[in-house]
Amino acid sequence: MSEETKQQQKLSLTLKTAKGTKDWADKDMVIRQHIFQTLTNIFQKHGAITIDTPVFELKEILQGKYGEDSKLIYDLKDQGGELCSLRYDLTVPFARFVAMNNLDKIKRYHIAKVYRRDQPAMTKGRMREFYQCDFDVAGSYDAMIPDSEVMSILVDGLTSLGINDFKIKLNHRKILDGIFQIAGVKDEDIRKISSAVDKLDKAPWEDVKKEITVEKGQTEEVAEIIGKYVKLSGSLADVIAVLEKDEGILSNEKAMEGLADIKLLKEYVEAMQIDNFISFDLSLARGLDYYTGLIYEAVTAASAPPSDAQEKKEQALKKKDSKKAKKNGTSNDDDASAYVGVGSIAAGGRYDNLVAMFSEATGKKSAPQIPCVGVSFGVERIFSIIKSRSNLDKIASTSTQVYVMAFGGGADWNGLTGDRLKILKKLWDNGIEAEHMYKGKVNPRKQFDAAEKSGAKIAVILGKEEYLQEGKLRIKKLGPEYADDDGELVAAEDFVSLVQFKLEEMKEANGGLDEITKLIQGI
Amino acid sequence: MSEETKQQQKLSLTLKTAKGTKDWADKDMVIRQHIFQTLTNIFQKHGAITIDTPVFELKEILQGKYGEDSKLIYDLKDQGGELCSLRYDLTVPFARFVAMNNLDKIKRYHIAKVYRRDQPAMTKGRMREFYQCDFDVAGSYDAMIPDSEVMSILVDGLTSLGINDFKIKLNHRKILDGIFQIAGVKDEDIRKISSAVDKLDKAPWEDVKKEITVEKGQTEEVAEIIGKYVKLSGSLADVIAVLEKDEGILSNEKAMEGLADIKLLKEYVEAMQIDNFISFDLSLARGLDYYTGLIYEAVTAASAPPSDAQEKKEQALKKKDSKKAKKNGTSNDDDASAYVGVGSIAAGGRYDNLVAMFSEATGKKSAPQIPCVGVSFGVERIFSIIKSRSNLDKIASTSTQVYVMAFGGGADWNGLTGDRLKILKKLWDNGIEAEHMYKGKVNPRKQFDAAEKSGAKIAVILGKEEYLQEGKLRIKKLGPEYADDDGELVAAEDFVSLVQFKLEEMKEANGGLDEITKLIQGI
Repeated sequence: MSEETKQQQKLSLTLKTAKGTKDWADKDMVIRQHIFQTLTNIFQKHGAITIDTPVFELKEILQGKYGEDSKLIYDLKDQGGELCSLRYDLTVPFARFVAMNNLDKIKRYHIAKVYRRDQPAMTKGRMREFYQCDFDVAGSYDAMIPDSEVMSILVDGLTSLGINDFKIKLNHRKILDGIFQIAGVKDEDIRKISSAVDKLDKAPWEDVKKEITVEKGQTEEVAEIIGKYVKLSGSLADVIAVLEKDEGILSNEKAMEGLADIKLLKEYVEAMQIDNFISFDLSLARGLDYYTGLIYEAVTAASAPPSDAQEKKEQALKKKDSKKAKKNGTSNDDDASAYVGVGSIAAGGRYDNLVAMFSEATGKKSAPQIPCVGVSFGVERIFSIIKSRSNLDKIASTSTQVYVMAFGGGADWNGLTGDRLKILKKLWDNGIEAEHMYKGKVNPRKQFDAAEKSGAKIAVILGKEEYLQEGKLRIKKLGPEYADDDGELVAAEDFVSLVQFKLEEMKEANGGLDEITKLIQGI
Repeated sequence: MSEETKQQQKLSLTLKTAKGTKDWADKDMVIRQHIFQTLTNIFQKHGAITIDTPVFELKEILQGKYGEDSKLIYDLKDQGGELCSLRYDLTVPFARFVAMNNLDKIKRYHIAKVYRRDQPAMTKGRMREFYQCDFDVAGSYDAMIPDSEVMSILVDGLTSLGINDFKIKLNHRKILDGIFQIAGVKDEDIRKISSAVDKLDKAPWEDVKKEITVEKGQTEEVAEIIGKYVKLSGSLADVIAVLEKDEGILSNEKAMEGLADIKLLKEYVEAMQIDNFISFDLSLARGLDYYTGLIYEAVTAASAPPSDAQEKKEQALKKKDSKKAKKNGTSNDDDASAYVGVGSIAAGGRYDNLVAMFSEATGKKSAPQIPCVGVSFGVERIFSIIKSRSNLDKIASTSTQVYVMAFGGGADWNGLTGDRLKILKKLWDNGIEAEHMYKGKVNPRKQFDAAEKSGAKIAVILGKEEYLQEGKLRIKKLGPEYADDDGELVAAEDFVSLVQFKLEEMKEANGGLDEITKLIQGI
């Protein structure tokens, strides 16, 4: 009898979320919402629409798309009807959507949860339910124009979130494949050699070379030639200059196609002045098979330590993790890069054949090729970076601006609940976030405490005499710096404008800049 | 061999979403986002935080919470590890969250998808994956203060979405239970008689009376007394006046407790001037067992036809649907009210014992009672109302404001792609939504067509001579009304301010009011 069945038979229930999942609330939620909103604004700035696909797809849609990792897909129980699985990423549902609707072009973003029955590693931010945040352009366009825009979205996205210490490692699948051809790798071996090279960001060349020769049966010479190329990295200008003089490259058609793309990309990213973020790194291979052109990966300083330090670190980690990684089939780059610091915080590339794969699977004879290029932001990792920088104490979980209070006493005192609601309604109708205590009679101290907890900046006070006899409200700024400020009396009919004025004052005193942004980015 | 297995064995794949689920995109998405944003702003105006719980919970968390409807819960396949199910609503996960974190109070909203293996009825907007949009206040407070605020959120929510022709049917479980006691119904029979009464919104009294007497074994006299009360409905003032003079009510403790609440509520909703939306309707019972106090349901004119018409309609519909409804166990009010027009578009009530149920289930001896009151907006139904009213042709799926074009020709003409990107980057950096065609050389006509499709309001044009020789850009308003406007030339260095100025001009010409809101609400 499984541990679960036993558990169910117990009367007592354990209150927890399922393994690898968690609840989000309070300040974490505020920070995550800020990340989503910031990225959404950027995606919309580039004319993208958003789509929402179901959390589960027909099982057959996901089948054969993730190779090794397919074992990590969650299936729904067969309760009669269709067999379904929870989506593993947002890219396959996107391709399904494009093929299903016979779209010839679309620019879309999608921020949603995906599911992987992976070994959770909370410390590395690896969960079984987590968000992906994708932007993709589908359609047949001129070379590198959408690609370079995706680059600028990557840069704009991270810098807008206050992350400036990152590098975009960039490479081209055609150049990589060309290099393997130059070295003499048979076409059928290219992908597996490529995946060996992909480990160079976490293992020293010697280990990778051993894998290429001993494990994957290439000759010393082949490995040496590959090594000569994949060690190349630097600015686009520098690496292009080297490759343009290289006999091997000049004589390889594929490599030259890739190089032409990269030279065009250089022109475009320089026009947008984002070239300084880019490092042309011939060792970048990326795990996923479906990439066909440009590939890139943004890493933070933290996740790319000087190679010496890195190698030592990795030597240690490899022993510990490599077996587990194999066991769980977690050989995709997400998990791999989790081994160093936060790892890649955004990644993507061009995949020109995925949509056609779907169209053809439906039996369509001549399915049109719908080229795609996109980027996926690693929300969980970006979250942990931003949270560690943010001014947590000061971040309020609520947007409350105003707290309505009633001060009074005596036998006839009823707390003026109805009047408070009248005042609150005026504030709400004017779009002002306002709260009060859900109590009839309550003393001032408690109301001030509640106001402070709520993060309110202004108190609107119904004083027994002031309000009942003079029909006046007291408007007072809250916070230690206003401790001596007794506030102002104003006629209850037109108090809203004074509240708005004081809120405006306090916002300016605060430097104008959106407060949440300041707090979250620890500015 | 099941139909599915056969399907899988076919090589050819059918591109579709799973039964009862759909993709959302384009204008539908814009409208839905507008609904979510509008409601979110309102929830935040009331100091609520938002939480995000996992899409699946431990199976045992959901077990025994939905009675009959438990059969509609989606289970995940047992792939080893814990047994999990997809959430059926947001209320049980909320109660789990409150109990698990030992919270004594929280005000939260949650907009997320829930899952029901129900018979889909797209026409009625009944899907297997759909959104719920909940606001709940948990905590021990003074009577009717949070309850009346929830009422005002209900009103504010619907009116802010341009829905003004609705009534809030309101009742109190204690009054209802009191009535049953007065009539002589045994306590153990109350819930089943209550569910019979609940059908009064879709069946005439005669049918309900028959169910009470014949099916549920109450005497004629009992039924008559119940009938006398449940036929009462009208303004809070009127119905309160009747009940206050009623011998039965006056002599029943429970009913008097409920009546005291209602009188307090009357004071508060009058203070907020939302009483005119409320109809005190003693026939409202609501399906769910866990309600303990105030219960309410907002219905649109469409969904509450004059009772004659209604009865005829229902007679017809009952025959067709009642069996099916039983078969699917879809006897909850959502589905029931789907039988008339769009049915209830928002509903909720007070449930004071659900959280304690969880705490106690964990074996805790003296679990504190955490009273809750909340409202759930029927997003799918609200969506269909709003969509039918909205100016669909004019709604743009994108936010694009500016389209960058390059006009030129001749042998040396290259389309100025790099320069376009330079211009675009300036717009993006200034937060302006801007696009261009992902092509090198392309003729003006095509660029204007693309601009129109994009919904852009302004064209920034790089004319071969104007730009290359004079370093000037042409800024032109787009749209039929500006056909004769040739636009203005401006130095390429400082074109952004002119673009912003023209956008502002066009916004004012458009009446200032947020355009999306106007279009969506068909104002």
